[in-house]
Amino acid sequence: MKRWFRTGATLLVGAGIGASAIRLLSVSGRVEEEEKHGPYPGHPGLLSRVPVVPVPRVQASELTVSPGGSGAVMKYGFPSLANVKTRESYVTSYDPRTRTASWVIEKLNPTSLSGPSDRKYCNFKEDDSVHIFHRSTNADFRGSGFDRGHLAAAANHKWSQKAMEDTFYLSNVAPQNPHLNQNTWNNLEKLCRSLTKRYLNVYVCTGPLYLPRQEADGKLYVRYQVLGRNHVAVPTHFFKVLILEQVDGKGVELRSYVLPNEPIDEQVPLERFLVPIETIERASGLHFVPNIMKRTSNLQAITAR
Amino acid sequence: MKRWFRTGATLLVGAGIGASAIRLLSVSGRVEEEEKHGPYPGHPGLLSRVPVVPVPRVQASELTVSPGGSGAVMKYGFPSLANVKTRESYVTSYDPRTRTASWVIEKLNPTSLSGPSDRKYCNFKEDDSVHIFHRSTNADFRGSGFDRGHLAAAANHKWSQKAMEDTFYLSNVAPQNPHLNQNTWNNLEKLCRSLTKRYLNVYVCTGPLYLPRQEADGKLYVRYQVLGRNHVAVPTHFFKVLILEQVDGKGVELRSYVLPNEPIDEQVPLERFLVPIETIERASGLHFVPNIMKRTSNLQAITAR
Repeated sequence: MKRWFRTGATLLVGAGIGASAIRLLSVSGRVEEEEKHGPYPGHPGLLSRVPVVPVPRVQASELTVSPGGSGAVMKYGFPSLANVKTRESYVTSYDPRTRTASWVIEKLNPTSLSGPSDRKYCNFKEDDSVHIFHRSTNADFRGSGFDRGHLAAAANHKWSQKAMEDTFYLSNVAPQNPHLNQNTWNNLEKLCRSLTKRYLNVYVCTGPLYLPRQEADGKLYVRYQVLGRNHVAVPTHFFKVLILEQVDGKGVELRSYVLPNEPIDEQVPLERFLVPIETIERASGLHFVPNIMKRTSNLQAITAR
Repeated sequence: MKRWFRTGATLLVGAGIGASAIRLLSVSGRVEEEEKHGPYPGHPGLLSRVPVVPVPRVQASELTVSPGGSGAVMKYGFPSLANVKTRESYVTSYDPRTRTASWVIEKLNPTSLSGPSDRKYCNFKEDDSVHIFHRSTNADFRGSGFDRGHLAAAANHKWSQKAMEDTFYLSNVAPQNPHLNQNTWNNLEKLCRSLTKRYLNVYVCTGPLYLPRQEADGKLYVRYQVLGRNHVAVPTHFFKVLILEQVDGKGVELRSYVLPNEPIDEQVPLERFLVPIETIERASGLHFVPNIMKRTSNLQAITAR
């Protein structure tokens, strides 16, 4: 018997930008047993009309301040700003500290999946839009024992040779266990593509995670290897968040996966790696649900255990 | 005999935004032995007329893309954007994944250092402008063995009670070894304040580092503890970058320190912790020199070993 968790994750109600009156509405943990209609049945929406939390934004007007009344703190500039980049096939935010993306978002549908593009003309390449101090190179991966794992998958973008080539920027790559990359991860990528047959559009957001675990002293530690001269971080896990638009336009489904960066037996069903979206939001420092709720009043998050 | 490294760090020449013709000009490693004029002698400028690298910026026009010609990839929003915040006493960029700041910048001068503000009216407080998933709390620190270490120091902002109170937001705090916090780190903060007597303005940028080290298997790993329910990252090191404006207005000096997050014998002189700015820029994912060079053609970076 399979159990479906219909989890609303834990959603926040914000009373406006900068408001302090924030209340936590936990609607997680609702468990319902259902008929099994197949591995990915459609469900009626559960999270209708969940309020939206504004995502913090940089506002130019806020970028100076005058302590002591004597000039701007930021006279010598900002050490960092979000590195959001648009490519032919995806949009990404780069993390210059780990030398890999924080997230990469693609939009898949039958149009993007078909075309004459050929992977044999694609080569992994440095992203020269990233400062040389913070960029990974092919040399960093050489002999490391790790694959150059695509975040946005090449096979998702057959519609254009340029779009496929853009997935070979090393900023769209993270060190990945070869067995994982070539087996279970590959299957997850195939699943994303197959879902385009049953949904209007499939938005896929992929990124690395660096999860803590308990060590012998009973304390929690984050520990990850770094590769090569540029210290490219090896994620402990990867996430994929699937935002699935229903064909009838009535709602949006959310499926969020976390896979460890290690060999996984292909016999383990992918549903085992479904997690509540809150798990990814907390661990990654990212937000998904507040953004999605700006676009739909009918979101259902599906988690199988 | 003391040696002064006049390091120009490693500077980049960019040929414009998005340009691929980027060449690396390494001027590091120039060692000159000099007369000792005291612990912080002024030097003539070394890095005159170093070209400026544009810092990547989010441009609204780049924030959508249409693969397959069928709508925007970002329909369901951006999972992250830079969290730059302005407070009374500092400007900061928050890292929601580590639950602490990436950097905090203050501007110190005699005006900001004097005033009636009293620390006894200040209490550490949650930053409710940070989403509850990504926020540290006082409970996370309790019993952890770590201090709530200020990044922007309270004593730097006596000019306004509000400015001092703002340094008590937990987003301006990182878990810090108590011995370090109360001794050598405190001395470094005092040094910053004392430099306001000899410079027009002292800009101080402080932040955490998570540096790799070699383990028994010969590979490099980043490893850091996380505290409490919210998994607040314990930095392995801290940096302080001092941007010092000369009184005669003729130039800017740069001093960059890295201290391990562990007890340090107070007898060790602070100059021992000076590093080339490039070290911090590489490890943190941040940029300092390109920004500073937009404001001066006369920058000297001082590193003692």
